[in-house]
Amino acid sequence: MSAQQKPPAINKRRIRLGMVGGGEGAFIGAVHRLAARMDDHYEFVAGALSSTPEKSRRSGAALNLDEARVYDDFASMAKAEAARPDGIEAVSIVTPNHMHKAPILTFLKAGIDVICDKPLTISLDDALEIEDAVKASKLVFALTHNYSAYPLVRQARAMVQAGDLGAVRLVHVEYPQDWLCTPQETSGNKQAEWRTDPARSGAGGCIGDIGTHAFQLADFITNLPLEELAADLSSFSPGRRVDDNVQIMLRYQNGARGMLWASQVAPGHDNGLKIRVYGEKGSLEWMQAQPNSLQVARLGAPIQIYARGGAGLGAGAALGSRLPPGHPEGYLEAFGNLYSEAAVAIRARRMGQARPADLLVPGIDDAVKGMAFIDAALTSSKNNAGWVKPRR
Amino acid sequence: MSAQQKPPAINKRRIRLGMVGGGEGAFIGAVHRLAARMDDHYEFVAGALSSTPEKSRRSGAALNLDEARVYDDFASMAKAEAARPDGIEAVSIVTPNHMHKAPILTFLKAGIDVICDKPLTISLDDALEIEDAVKASKLVFALTHNYSAYPLVRQARAMVQAGDLGAVRLVHVEYPQDWLCTPQETSGNKQAEWRTDPARSGAGGCIGDIGTHAFQLADFITNLPLEELAADLSSFSPGRRVDDNVQIMLRYQNGARGMLWASQVAPGHDNGLKIRVYGEKGSLEWMQAQPNSLQVARLGAPIQIYARGGAGLGAGAALGSRLPPGHPEGYLEAFGNLYSEAAVAIRARRMGQARPADLLVPGIDDAVKGMAFIDAALTSSKNNAGWVKPRR
Amino acid sequence: MSAQQKPPAINKRRIRLGMVGGGEGAFIGAVHRLAARMDDHYEFVAGALSSTPEKSRRSGAALNLDEARVYDDFASMAKAEAARPDGIEAVSIVTPNHMHKAPILTFLKAGIDVICDKPLTISLDDALEIEDAVKASKLVFALTHNYSAYPLVRQARAMVQAGDLGAVRLVHVEYPQDWLCTPQETSGNKQAEWRTDPARSGAGGCIGDIGTHAFQLADFITNLPLEELAADLSSFSPGRRVDDNVQIMLRYQNGARGMLWASQVAPGHDNGLKIRVYGEKGSLEWMQAQPNSLQVARLGAPIQIYARGGAGLGAGAALGSRLPPGHPEGYLEAFGNLYSEAAVAIRARRMGQARPADLLVPGIDDAVKGMAFIDAALTSSKNNAGWVKPRR
Amino acid sequence: MSAQQKPPAINKRRIRLGMVGGGEGAFIGAVHRLAARMDDHYEFVAGALSSTPEKSRRSGAALNLDEARVYDDFASMAKAEAARPDGIEAVSIVTPNHMHKAPILTFLKAGIDVICDKPLTISLDDALEIEDAVKASKLVFALTHNYSAYPLVRQARAMVQAGDLGAVRLVHVEYPQDWLCTPQETSGNKQAEWRTDPARSGAGGCIGDIGTHAFQLADFITNLPLEELAADLSSFSPGRRVDDNVQIMLRYQNGARGMLWASQVAPGHDNGLKIRVYGEKGSLEWMQAQPNSLQVARLGAPIQIYARGGAGLGAGAALGSRLPPGHPEGYLEAFGNLYSEAAVAIRARRMGQARPADLLVPGIDDAVKGMAFIDAALTSSKNNAGWVKPRR
Repeated sequence: MSAQQKPPAINKRRIRLGMVGGGEGAFIGAVHRLAARMDDHYEFVAGALSSTPEKSRRSGAALNLDEARVYDDFASMAKAEAARPDGIEAVSIVTPNHMHKAPILTFLKAGIDVICDKPLTISLDDALEIEDAVKASKLVFALTHNYSAYPLVRQARAMVQAGDLGAVRLVHVEYPQDWLCTPQETSGNKQAEWRTDPARSGAGGCIGDIGTHAFQLADFITNLPLEELAADLSSFSPGRRVDDNVQIMLRYQNGARGMLWASQVAPGHDNGLKIRVYGEKGSLEWMQAQPNSLQVARLGAPIQIYARGGAGLGAGAALGSRLPPGHPEGYLEAFGNLYSEAAVAIRARRMGQARPADLLVPGIDDAVKGMAFIDAALTSSKNNAGWVKPRR
Repeated sequence: MSAQQKPPAINKRRIRLGMVGGGEGAFIGAVHRLAARMDDHYEFVAGALSSTPEKSRRSGAALNLDEARVYDDFASMAKAEAARPDGIEAVSIVTPNHMHKAPILTFLKAGIDVICDKPLTISLDDALEIEDAVKASKLVFALTHNYSAYPLVRQARAMVQAGDLGAVRLVHVEYPQDWLCTPQETSGNKQAEWRTDPARSGAGGCIGDIGTHAFQLADFITNLPLEELAADLSSFSPGRRVDDNVQIMLRYQNGARGMLWASQVAPGHDNGLKIRVYGEKGSLEWMQAQPNSLQVARLGAPIQIYARGGAGLGAGAALGSRLPPGHPEGYLEAFGNLYSEAAVAIRARRMGQARPADLLVPGIDDAVKGMAFIDAALTSSKNNAGWVKPRR
Repeated sequence: MSAQQKPPAINKRRIRLGMVGGGEGAFIGAVHRLAARMDDHYEFVAGALSSTPEKSRRSGAALNLDEARVYDDFASMAKAEAARPDGIEAVSIVTPNHMHKAPILTFLKAGIDVICDKPLTISLDDALEIEDAVKASKLVFALTHNYSAYPLVRQARAMVQAGDLGAVRLVHVEYPQDWLCTPQETSGNKQAEWRTDPARSGAGGCIGDIGTHAFQLADFITNLPLEELAADLSSFSPGRRVDDNVQIMLRYQNGARGMLWASQVAPGHDNGLKIRVYGEKGSLEWMQAQPNSLQVARLGAPIQIYARGGAGLGAGAALGSRLPPGHPEGYLEAFGNLYSEAAVAIRARRMGQARPADLLVPGIDDAVKGMAFIDAALTSSKNNAGWVKPRR
Repeated sequence: MSAQQKPPAINKRRIRLGMVGGGEGAFIGAVHRLAARMDDHYEFVAGALSSTPEKSRRSGAALNLDEARVYDDFASMAKAEAARPDGIEAVSIVTPNHMHKAPILTFLKAGIDVICDKPLTISLDDALEIEDAVKASKLVFALTHNYSAYPLVRQARAMVQAGDLGAVRLVHVEYPQDWLCTPQETSGNKQAEWRTDPARSGAGGCIGDIGTHAFQLADFITNLPLEELAADLSSFSPGRRVDDNVQIMLRYQNGARGMLWASQVAPGHDNGLKIRVYGEKGSLEWMQAQPNSLQVARLGAPIQIYARGGAGLGAGAALGSRLPPGHPEGYLEAFGNLYSEAAVAIRARRMGQARPADLLVPGIDDAVKGMAFIDAALTSSKNNAGWVKPRR
């Protein structure tokens, strides 16, 4: 192991974790549990895992949970766990978007730290209400924009924000997928069903599901305040009730320009998140599908390929890099980094210590910014792609 | 040589070719001459090569031209050559944009076929005037959008237009460069000087120089009529008088959506022309920097990489492919294909034969469409990126 | 989650796991523990983690082990754990190579299943002795050749062994690294110290450390019996006591030919394991650095890129694929697959059930074959790269 | 055009060129003619193009040759052309290998400079005889190892020989193709017929056809004298009379080691020439299929990608680079570079001037070295891949 890897400090005691959602038929719940287990910071001990008590119990059994700690609903879980001496210290909320707000508010009230999947909720107004509650609670709130936790995304952020590329002029980010090319929502695909149902997903489809990831990644790396955007949202699959393709032009406050494309109807793309940032003196390019390398171009020099764990990286890129270069890490490891950072924040709070300054796990500010982005894009698109300033 | 290569038929006699522009200090003139020589269809015999008689003569001598056929200006060249029994049969016009119109009209009047660099001229009105003259003349007019002559671009066009990908939903084309990141036009770079001078280049900078290439490539492959566009043109280099970055959203008449990005201020991109077309059933991707492969994705199947000269290609891709697969061909070969196709058209016209149906060298229609694209983009950008329907 | 992912069945009870080696300053021990945790099949409860009691205790504390189950040495650990009603059911042996044999024999004797890092031991004679013990014990023995557990390596194996490529003619495998370009072993690098020390690593350096991985990968995918090999082993770093570069020509019993290259002195390669297999009708190529894609070429068709979790894969590639395509998985996930397969084998044995036929985790046969490969290569190299038939 | 491109000086008068071979059904003859035309250094005026007078005449007519200068055989051509005041000054010999020696000797005798395709001839003894004739003649002799004329191969050579990578330790070169996977020689493929016929191709098949290219490329870049080689040549296609797969281990005089693989039975490879050179401090990698980039790795720094015409290159890489970076050049341009360098050498000789020192077009020394390599490989392979020192 070279100097470029810095394994997370080993915890003295695992944080007791509960989960809302993530039972049978879910996808992201298993990812959260694996991410929590990655660096051994958590012990998964309780859950309200499904929408029906029976399914919840079946899911709990399959996951080896103590029967007594498998709950019918999140409210009884919050109440019971808060009352136990060995009750959960943190909860992961991995339900569909419309079911984020209520459990967030409930667990905050119960004094339990919250880790929530993105997007935060289904409307900007709800988001603002949640924000107030989070701020009032002083508890840890983490939003799992996992792509921002790849070591080389951290490196990209550090380089841009240190001015290595000069003032940023252009931001190009895209996130194409192809899983909704056909009407999956009427073919029995559970994921497609709720993600294209405005009642459960919010008014935005593609924009909320992956457009927010693209936006957050650009925001995370550049830290440029957005001035306004012009968005053209489309729905190509017949009968689809939400957008499945998103084209956006971006204007940043410093004069930089951007383009954002997210799509669920782009054949050949499994999960093609890619970002390029161009400054006066140089540029960088990173693709999620090959997350262990980062391309950097500086005017007047050959292009350079930085490797995760390799030469030339700063401290930020070492955090959460578990292996030497050439041993590929992926999506689960990045997700695990967020959980490990959240664990550090949770432990610090519980021990009354200051939150370490180098923690970059997204929080409530990012969550609200994402909802304001969705809100502005929907407004613009209804207005024939006219320019709209985000409300946050 | 496999069945996939179809060398151009060898000509019985070379076409006598003249050139306007392309003397000392020029870049594209040498490319045109090499392209003309590629398949041995032309003999370069006359020129008005530079803006001053002296430079023109020096350039002619360097190129082994007969002194008697090196002219001070294009007007005397047209007159003298038209009068010679062995006068030129075709002329290449490779001057800056503002110097296209006058020679085009002059040589057409003299009955000489015209090959012209892009964009056609500096305004749409001029373009329409040229169009009338070309149509009235019945002569051959070819515009050197060379990227459309790569064998695998021909293959892409054939596949899209045959419906192999299903109805087109999305078109993404980009053409980033980095050579104008710094103010080259005030540093003695001749190319930069005229290309950023509205009087010589037209009101569009990047949009005219490379935006048109990107637009033409998308148009060539998809053949989708454009409904409207919304363009945000920027100029990042201090003091620059024309745009150096172009962001455009496209709406096609069939409901397809597109994004077009062209830039001269994107560090790390030498000449990054890339196009992606997404249909209901599949997609394709082609990059100019690696022109000998074409990526094709079909829903429900692994991605395929077609090789120039390789398996699975249609007749269109064989035309102008000179070598077996694995022997890379490039920019000059593609340029040569246009010249060779123009030669076939010129010879057919001179022999009173019908023009072969499979010639795809761009002509006056493409030339005017390109100018209408520039015109619409400039109008939209002045109008805060509002939607504009192109006038053609 | 598509049909292409098949998460491992969830266990009803975690297997109690102990570890020999893997304490402070070790690299691979942490990898083994994370891999064991990946799919939640194991509970890590005991260890003899370091060469000195004090370091072992410090390591145990850092890992939250019960103090009573942190042992001074593997012998006392085997004895004590075998006597406990809740004693370990399996042990991971992650010491340097010369310290594999003794604990293997000891734990087998204690009736505890064994998972061991590669290579098996430091000589072929020792390997044969271990083989006898394993076979006599009827216990599970797993060797962690993790590269063979990548989903697309499983796919490659299935395709080759099903004859999709026709009879295999050529096998090209390489494993270049650059970490020993300079004399790390005299610069305080602990990994370099033992890996270049014949007493701890065995007579082979590079050949044992990574050459065996390359050989095993080729063997795993092709299942071709090796007839003979000609090996030229070199040591480039001044003063190095073992080989740091390995060139081998391979002849298989079916007439196929192969080339194997492993190197620790190849600048630019972090961990460049790559394999190519060529048959009469097609070929495949896989690189560890980009493990989520597999290139397949069939004569007369465009090259295809298979994606992990994507279209066209067989059942073998679904096993151990935890995420949809486009969400990259890596080294730890592959390592986790071996641990999960071992868990299935261990549980089956303990429940008196037949071992499932589709388990491909390497066992004692692979372990001995690897030692026979090292043995033959060393013999050949001493004999000026003359042909040598492996003794197994 | 940046400072990185240096177009060849324009000639005052074209060199009169004849050709032996290259008529109907030939592949490489057209390539030579196009290469000669590339930079306008030659005028193609005479030929003995085919094995029969009738085919030769038909080929000459198709190529617009003056009937009087289309000859029945090379002997009459040499005689007649030498007698003309406007006779050819140079001849290209592009016949099958067994038909190189006689025309070379004849044209040298006639005082005509010779450009010859590779390999030089069909045996080392013949090669030595030709060498004597060339040296005695003082004429220009060029062998068209075109791959050594790519600008980035020139850059690679300059870097290695300047010691940028430190002392060379490892050389890995491979040249796989797949066009002879099936028995093309019995299916009417003319190229396959003569290239697998020992009487026309020499005793080596794949070794002579492409193995020599691979060897020459390594030799050109590294300039390392070969000490000995161990070669295992195989023939996989039933009934094939020459080798179609070549595996070689190389030992250089400085202690460096190498591996060379050439194959005509490797599905998926069109023309996969690739070279990697590893020194003490760094490495480089170049692939013919993507000839416009060169990967350079230096210990302790990110990998760099040099672009043809781009930043960081030396003078050698500018020679023969006709276009700015990002405008891909290919096989024909590289071939053209050899012809242009030969033109400079021919003109210098005819004008009694010294041959410029920077001309790197391969000559008789390279030609003989290539034959010695074939000879040694055949000897080694017959001797069960025992080590053989090349006779030159």
